Amino acid sequence: MPDTRGVIVVAARRRFATHGYDATSLRSIASDAGVDAALLIHYFGSKEALFISAVGLPTPLPDLFADVARLPRRRAAEALVRRYLEIADSEHSRNTMLALVRSAVSSEQAAGLLRRFLTEALLGAIAQRGGEEDQALRASLIAAQLVGIAMLRHVLRLPPLAEAGPDEVVALAAPAIERYLS
Amino acid sequence: MPDTRGVIVVAARRRFATHGYDATSLRSIASDAGVDAALLIHYFGSKEALFISAVGLPTPLPDLFADVARLPRRRAAEALVRRYLEIADSEHSRNTMLALVRSAVSSEQAAGLLRRFLTEALLGAIAQRGGEEDQALRASLIAAQLVGIAMLRHVLRLPPLAEAGPDEVVALAAPAIERYLS
Repeated sequence: MPDTRGVIVVAARRRFATHGYDATSLRSIASDAGVDAALLIHYFGSKEALFISAVGLPTPLPDLFADVARLPRRRAAEALVRRYLEIADSEHSRNTMLALVRSAVSSEQAAGLLRRFLTEALLGAIAQRGGEEDQALRASLIAAQLVGIAMLRHVLRLPPLAEAGPDEVVALAAPAIERYLS
Repeated sequence: MPDTRGVIVVAARRRFATHGYDATSLRSIASDAGVDAALLIHYFGSKEALFISAVGLPTPLPDLFADVARLPRRRAAEALVRRYLEIADSEHSRNTMLALVRSAVSSEQAAGLLRRFLTEALLGAIAQRGGEEDQALRASLIAAQLVGIAMLRHVLRLPPLAEAGPDEVVALAAPAIERYLS
């Protein structure tokens, strides 16, 4: 028995990555997946829900960010950059990244989804470290550094950053991110 | 005598910001500007040249980055963040940012333009400080932090970063960026 749900998710991820949120129709995803559009509604309920499934991170978020909340600063910063790169560097995730960024810059609805994701997941985990009154702003600047790395490494493919190994990026970025965790 | 060139640039910036590079035609810009499409070629030569004019930074780049090459580290980092925010925060530049990011994520040609711009302007200026072998990667990570700030502040409008005053952002981001300038 084929994994119809999985086939739909892969087709959706590719469509969202190429065309962005607004320009992608359920009909075009169904056509790519070779299924009836009604099946998409059956499995996912809505285009927004399918988008969230399609661009969802491959690693469960709690695993990714659990360490950040309890490690000492330097090690928390290193763990954050390294885990983030493991996700962002995977072949699977290039499409996810492109889908998220392309959709978020072209659709207010998709931007809202990414905003909610960043606020609840990443900012939430960093806020658990407690601390200063400006903690939310510090967490946002960490998110900005990570989102910027993904933009330049995977979307723009700026040579020094696109070609650097994860160890090199971690070695330089962790001390900078550590400053935000103080 | 009306500033026809200026009218065209404003129309082009709005179009590129809304639709991205690939989906914007010279004809649609000409129509918005109320001029003949031939006039666009007369003034700018090509769509790529018009794009560069339309998304060009309002402040001359040498002014923006001159200090970075010669100031001591902390002050160079502060100047970089502050000048960048002055540009990114202006009403004019929101459209510029959106045009650049929207076009770069949807068009390989526009991504190439932004890559060239980042490499020559920002990375070039930081490289003038001389220093370590990994200087280009350090400069790229600074660019990633700044691009990420613009993304979250102006495109996604993530609350803590979208609402923070420039002074708050400079106070937190400069020490982190300083780490890359060592």
